[in-house]
Parts: sequence; structure tokens; C-alpha cells
Amino acid sequence: MAKIKVGDYLFQRLAQLNIKTVWGVPGDYELALLDLIGDAGIRFSGNANELIASYAADGYSRLNGAGALVTTYGPGELSAYCGHAGAYAEFCPVVHIVGYPGVTAMKNKTLMHHSLGTGEFDMYHEMIKHISADTTVLTEISTAVADIDRCLNSMLYHSRPVYIGVPVDMSHRLVSADGLKTPLRTELPPNDQKTEASVVDQILQKLGKFSYPVIIADGNAVRDGCVAAEDRLAEITGFPYFTTCMGKGGPNEDLPNFGGVYQGAGSTPDIKKAVESADCVLWLGSFRLRKKHRTDFNSGEFTDNVATSVIVDMQRFFTKVGAHMAETGTSGEWENSQSMSSAIVLTASKAFGAAATKLPKGCLMYNQTIFGSIGYAGPSAAGAFQAAKESGRLKRGIVITGEGSLQLTPMCFADMLKLDHKPIVFVLNNNGYTVERLIHGKDASYNTLPLWDYDALRKVFGPAHPSRYYGPIKTREQFDSLLKDEQFQRSEIFQLVELVLDELDAPLSVRLVTSAIEEFNQKHAAGASMAG
Amino acid sequence: MAKIKVGDYLFQRLAQLNIKTVWGVPGDYELALLDLIGDAGIRFSGNANELIASYAADGYSRLNGAGALVTTYGPGELSAYCGHAGAYAEFCPVVHIVGYPGVTAMKNKTLMHHSLGTGEFDMYHEMIKHISADTTVLTEISTAVADIDRCLNSMLYHSRPVYIGVPVDMSHRLVSADGLKTPLRTELPPNDQKTEASVVDQILQKLGKFSYPVIIADGNAVRDGCVAAEDRLAEITGFPYFTTCMGKGGPNEDLPNFGGVYQGAGSTPDIKKAVESADCVLWLGSFRLRKKHRTDFNSGEFTDNVATSVIVDMQRFFTKVGAHMAETGTSGEWENSQSMSSAIVLTASKAFGAAATKLPKGCLMYNQTIFGSIGYAGPSAAGAFQAAKESGRLKRGIVITGEGSLQLTPMCFADMLKLDHKPIVFVLNNNGYTVERLIHGKDASYNTLPLWDYDALRKVFGPAHPSRYYGPIKTREQFDSLLKDEQFQRSEIFQLVELVLDELDAPLSVRLVTSAIEEFNQKHAAGASMAG
Repeated sequence: MAKIKVGDYLFQRLAQLNIKTVWGVPGDYELALLDLIGDAGIRFSGNANELIASYAADGYSRLNGAGALVTTYGPGELSAYCGHAGAYAEFCPVVHIVGYPGVTAMKNKTLMHHSLGTGEFDMYHEMIKHISADTTVLTEISTAVADIDRCLNSMLYHSRPVYIGVPVDMSHRLVSADGLKTPLRTELPPNDQKTEASVVDQILQKLGKFSYPVIIADGNAVRDGCVAAEDRLAEITGFPYFTTCMGKGGPNEDLPNFGGVYQGAGSTPDIKKAVESADCVLWLGSFRLRKKHRTDFNSGEFTDNVATSVIVDMQRFFTKVGAHMAETGTSGEWENSQSMSSAIVLTASKAFGAAATKLPKGCLMYNQTIFGSIGYAGPSAAGAFQAAKESGRLKRGIVITGEGSLQLTPMCFADMLKLDHKPIVFVLNNNGYTVERLIHGKDASYNTLPLWDYDALRKVFGPAHPSRYYGPIKTREQFDSLLKDEQFQRSEIFQLVELVLDELDAPLSVRLVTSAIEEFNQKHAAGASMAG
Repeated sequence: MAKIKVGDYLFQRLAQLNIKTVWGVPGDYELALLDLIGDAGIRFSGNANELIASYAADGYSRLNGAGALVTTYGPGELSAYCGHAGAYAEFCPVVHIVGYPGVTAMKNKTLMHHSLGTGEFDMYHEMIKHISADTTVLTEISTAVADIDRCLNSMLYHSRPVYIGVPVDMSHRLVSADGLKTPLRTELPPNDQKTEASVVDQILQKLGKFSYPVIIADGNAVRDGCVAAEDRLAEITGFPYFTTCMGKGGPNEDLPNFGGVYQGAGSTPDIKKAVESADCVLWLGSFRLRKKHRTDFNSGEFTDNVATSVIVDMQRFFTKVGAHMAETGTSGEWENSQSMSSAIVLTASKAFGAAATKLPKGCLMYNQTIFGSIGYAGPSAAGAFQAAKESGRLKRGIVITGEGSLQLTPMCFADMLKLDHKPIVFVLNNNGYTVERLIHGKDASYNTLPLWDYDALRKVFGPAHPSRYYGPIKTREQFDSLLKDEQFQRSEIFQLVELVLDELDAPLSVRLVTSAIEEFNQKHAAGASMAG
């Protein structure tokens, strides 16, 4: 029986999932583990901090089908909990590997650094269970292999993050390598044939009865790798084809029947009418609980208006035809089928705004519609660009971010420069948190931000790498002329464009949705009892 | 009965604790609450991100006796968990206020943004209980006042962080203002007189018997505000007077009997001998569990060598004379008595290194010896400087940080520039994580860092504020000449000094401790069973 180190086993498993870059920040409990990473052909690309690492792993996982980060026990992992929880909410398969103190030290309740000094060591593990599909801390060599495999399979099954703690005295201990021969389960189990046939039959019957069916390709269809199948369905049927904020960037917008983004009251009037007058809606990869409304930001703050009775709701683990539910799942379609020529990565307010944009074919765009973490765009773009680059699919990386969002995580530019991603970064500078202003506090000082120098910014994080700044651009004419600039178009180096906008400048969809949010909040504050 | 809004009640309580600045990042669930902050005479000083806010609140609390930050539910609060846990480990009284979704929305399990999309809302609260002295989410108006007061009193009693969730539809609801007349309990309850007398008697007896007693002023004596009493004790008795890494910066180093920092094998030979040959050690404000060794980083990785039998161990909640323990506490001495002319703020590796420095009288220095979070120095300094400035005690703020630490949280400079702190920031640029290199991986790529431009850095974060860069300084002569520069000495604006050092350049104490850490880790990795 061939023997292998625990750390080698773990990294070999990541290599089997096509993970070529692991993100993170080094710390002394994880250094011995990191010594092994190169043996599996994986690069450790250190980030400035763990929040950035967690977002990068999220972005990487969206393109690659799985992502990973390594942090150190305590401060390191805690700094990544926001990104970890975001991956949970948004169905991103990420493995968070944490370097733990030695098993002996923990058993003896030794007061080690990075603990709380209480002699306890399991509190962080207890915390992260709330935001993980599965977790383990490898304190027993006899079960280490099984624990690793169980967690990785859980990550793939649920498409959500898992947590693997590796004590400093475990990474080099030996285990059997035989497990590596059994592949991880990268596909969902097949549906029960009879149930599947019955569900298909019901859907076909329903479609035969109704005169105006439409298709909505929602966010989880992208996460579940069903975009190609969706596009094909839209092509074959010719049904009017829509998406949502969460799904934007998935469907092929070049199809003649593609109609745009549906988001209830946040939709443009023609889209709103086109969707809400349908008598059958094939809603693919929606995100709603079985008896619940969809999430606020993906439904124009609960203003969408499609009766349950007309919906065929196809999700990862069930399909519901009107009121009839079947535990069929959408398995068998799960593959990494996205093709892309670019990646566009957006934060919350930008996601509403970008609803009205038209994307070229092969362009993938994504966002965080449920979790909505400000600061996510840049670092997750770095991760996505890296995955795209490794698979030869990165043509032009584009980041669109507000300056409020950028200020949380600007060090992500160091990653993009170091890894030679050559993105175009559009910084929309509204002198503050515009989306918050539109919700509440238009003139409040808490919504203003310190003035930064965005030209100096790209120099700070990579003086050794070529980069270029354009701006501040204050007029439409200046912007048009930039877009026509040949040097700019060639995108041969990192380019940062600062667009200076009015404080309350926002697209129609953003204004519609933020006013719905404030209305929702105010009704509650007044003690009324809306659907909320 | 006078009525007051819940948010006003909360902020009035903070004002009673002399909190004049609250840190944080705005988010839509907390905006209505923030509308009220000015009414209490408190400034909301927004940070670039929540990790920085949590460190700033920690630093602020160390000088002011209490600190506060406001974040938004989910992504906001999770991003602050590292700083929150650090405040727990290091005994910093911080209240973390979190803007929650509306009570109605939560009761109805509505899928709101910033949640995990599961219909549950209590997972973040469950998580933070592991790192808080007390917590509440104000879902019931009838108990809101009692819940706020209980949490704030817990924070003061334990000198640790607490968590108060304020749903968006609760901040403006009315409660009785009468509670504000009952002061929060800023002092520990008095000792039982008899027990205290007996303990004092035992200590005096012990001191009478022994020929060579010494005093060690440890970190929690600083947190508990007992520094003035310690200094007085050292003055009166003339006993040799030492401190530890965690306590460094507390004691008056101008006293003739002050001997330096004791840290086991990490001590200089004369200090080691002077402490370890004592036959009685008055150890004030130590941090050790009742039957446990002290923490690794505060004991030269468990290499200190003082027998329990010779120690009089005076801690916050008990005193132990040799083997005899009394639940007396050190209450009654708890007051905000620090005076300072400067603040020096250090990260982990710098804390070992600074052990050998000599601090002028009235100078306060602090660090995170237990939690040891890299990236802590800059943001916590911003908080400490602000507290010092508000109380008129800030003469010259100094930050000493490695470039590895700085790269986690450089946006803290925006706070210092915006708030006009005029610090001197020394960036020790070793081209990587030197302390990690010394522990493990001297030549490993994971311990290198991207090259940044530190001159551009201070411009980025405050182009509208005056600042100056000195460097790169590569020789002792250049550094000496800078220290003699009159313009530099005047410290009238933000000044950043980049010192370029060799990759493995570190003071003796750092080299001693890191080699002890690697030895400890290696022994465990080899399966041996040290004390750990």
C-alpha cells in the first residue's frame, strides 16, 4: 500500500478538481503544509489579506468548478469568514483549509497564540459550521483521508464551502494513497427514472395548454453549469428568454428571443409586461425556498409578480410544476460548460445597474445577489481572471466597481498585477456610497468617503508592473473618446479608468429597486406588517 | 416617564462611557440607527472596511476604557470577527453594534440580502457568542433597555467585547429614558474585606521571608488600569521591576529599578538571570489560566522558568500566593489612569523586537500578544491616536509595522490622514514575512510579498492632506541623519519612513523566540510529547 503525506493527499485531491492556484495568507501553523503544495503542481498565490483570499477563491470557483484558500487558525480564518459565508449563500464550491495548532498542544489545552487564551481550541470550528456545507479538523490520522474526501464531496454535492483544519503536526504524517484512485463525485446522482419521466410529462402537458410561455434563466442555473442547456432550450423553443440579476451574464444575450433582466418593479416596463403576462414560466435555477418568495435583491425587493400556479420551478434538488413538487433535482446536467471571452464582476449596486447592459456572446458576468458584500468585486475578479487565464479563456478582464466598494479591498490590484491579468478596471466615483444614499441618508455624512488618488493607487500595488490610468473622466464625450482609443482597446496592460459621477447618479433600475428597499424598511419601521 | 428612541438610549450610554468616536462601515440595515448618533455628541468615523473598524475600536478602547463599532448584518459583522475575537483574547472592552433586518422580516423568514438565503437569521449571532462576553439582538421592545445595559455592564466587568444587534425597525421605537440615570458599572465590585486582609497578610509574610523579591508587571495590569499602582509599588519597595511582551509600554521605564522585558529564553541573559534567581515574584496582571502555563508568545514559547511556588499571581479575578488561591480579584483599582505623551503600536514580531527598546516616561505602547493578528498595528493605532487626541494626550503618534503587516490593512492611513493624527509610520521592509521566515520557510516563496510603492501609498489615501515620505532608508547613517532632521522631529504632518532591511534581519529576542517556536512545532511534528 503506497503511503503519502496527509498534506500531499489533500493537495492531490485539489489537483484532481483542476485547481491550479490556491489563495491565502501564510501563518506559522500552515507553513509546513504549504511546503507540500508545489508537489501537486499547484501554485500558492498569497493575497494581502484573508478577506481578499476568500473572495478570490470564490471567483476562481465560479469558473473552475472549485476553488481553495489556506489561512491560519484564528485571526486568519476569522478574517475570511465574510467571504466564506458569501460562498455559502451564493453556492460557490470553495474549500477553506486552515492550519491548526498541534494536536498535542490542543489536547493539553496549552495557551497557544491565535487562540482566545481560554485553553479551548474548537470555538472557531463551531463558528464556521454555521456557514459551511461540511467541516472537519484532522485530529485523527486513522480517519484523515475519509474526512478530507467527505468534505470535498460535500462541497461538490451542495456547491457550497467546506472547512478542513490541518494541525501543524498532521500535515506530514503518512496515510494510504489508495483513496486517490476513487474519483471525487463531481456529478449529482442520477434522477429516479420514473419520477423524471413523470415530471417531464407534466411539464410538456402544461406547455401544451398555455399560449404564452417564457423562460427565465436564474442565478443557480449558472452555478449548476446548466447555461448551455438553457440556451439550447431557448433556441429550440423560441420562447421569450429572460434572466435575473443573479443570473445576468449566464444566458446568451445574442439570441433573438433574449429579452433582458426581470426584477419586478426594478424591470423596465416592457420586460415587466412581457414576463408578467406569461401564462407559463419555465424558471430555471431560481433561488427560493420551497414555500418562500425569492430573495429581496433578486426580486426587486419582493415586487415581482408571477403567480406560483404558472411557474415550473426547476432547481438543483427539486422541480415544482405549479403546486406539485418532485424531488428530482437537475442532476446529470452538472458540468463546467461555461465558455467566455471576458469576465465582468460586479458588486451589489452595480448588479442592479448592469441589468440594462447588453453583453456580447461568450461573455460571463457575475455578482453576489443574495449575500451582497461590498468589496467583493475586485478580489473575486482576480480569482475569476486567474481561472480563466489558466484555462486559456481570458481575453479581456473587466471590473466595474464603485469607489466605495473598491476602498474595502484595493489590494486585489496587487494580485492582478502580479499575476499579469491585464484587466480594465472602471472605478465609478460618486464620492460615497450611492446605493446607500438612494436607500437612506441622501445627505448624511456617513455615506461620504475619504478622497483617494486612484492614479497613485495602481502604482502603489505594483510599481514593477506596467499599468495606466485614465481620468478623471467627467463627461460622456471624454468617455466615448476613451472607448475609441486604440491603445486602450488593445488592453495590453493593467488599465484603471476613473469615471466621476454625480453623487446620486444611478441607472433607472437601481433607483427603482433602492426606492422599493427604503419603502420596505420604512413600512416595517412604522410597525406595519408587510409580507416581509 | 420621559421617552427616548432605542438608538438614542444606546448612544447616550456610549457617551456616558466617554466614547466620542464610533467606528464602522455603513450599510442599509444600520442607516436609520446612524441617523441618531450625532444627537449623543458622538462622531461616526467610517473606515474603509470592517476589519479596520474593529481594530480601531480595539485601539480606542485601550486608551478610553471602552470603544465601539457599527457594522451591518452578515458581510459587515463577519468581516469584523477577527478584530472582535482579538478584543476578546486581549481583554479589550468593545461594543460591536450590528444593524439587523427588521423583526417582522426575520419572524416571517423572508429571504433578505446579507442572510445566507436559508430563511434563518440567527446564525451570525450564534457564531459571535463564541467570541463575546455577552450578546443580544433587540427583537423585544419590552426588554431592549435591560438587554443593552446588561451587555454594556458585561463588557465592563469582563473587559471583553459584547454584541448588540439592532433591527432596522427597532432603532426608532420608544423606550423609557429613566434607565440612563443609573450609571453603568465601571468598577469591579469590592473584595470581601476579610479575604482581602488575609491575602494581604499572606503576601506580606511571604515577602518578609524571602531575600530577593522582584515585580513583574504583565499585560493585564495595563488593561485593568493598574499601571500607576504598580509603578508606585515598584517605587516604594525598590524591588527589581520587570515587564513582559504583553505588558511592555505599561510600566514607567524611567524608574531606576526597571530591568526590562522577561520572556524566558527570549530574554537577554542578564534579565533572564535576574528574574529566574528571585525567590519571590510579585506577578501582577499575568495572563494564565488557573492551572496552566502562560501563553506561548508571552513566555518565549513556554521557556520561562519561574517556579509556581515563588509566584504571587495577582489577576483580575483572583490572587494566588504560591499554591494558595483566593477569589479576591483586584477590584477597586480599576480606573483609567494611563497618562501618555505618545502611543506606539506594534504587531506580533515587532512586539518581540521592541522588548529591547527603552521607552520614555509617559509613553504607552501596546500589542496583541495572545491573539497575534497580523495587520492589527496600523488600524488599532488610528483608534488609539483618536482616543489620545480627544483626551488631549496625543503628542506624537508612532506606528512601527512590517510591510507584511501593513499590506493587510493599509487603508488605515486614510483614517489617520482624515482625522489629522500626524503620526510617524515606520515601515520595516524586509521583502516578506520575516517572522514566518524565521519560524519556518526561510527561502519559501510563500513568505515573499509583492513589491509596493510606499511613497505612493500615503498619497493614495489622502491626497488632500499633507504628508511626507522618507526613504528608502538603507543604512544606519541615513536613519541617524533622519532622526536628527528638525523638520522630521517636529512631526507636523503625516510622515512615512520606509526602512529597507535584510530579509532575515531581526533583533536577538525575535530570533530567540522564533527558533523556540519552530523547535516546539517540530517536536510535535515528530510525534514527541512536549509540555504543549
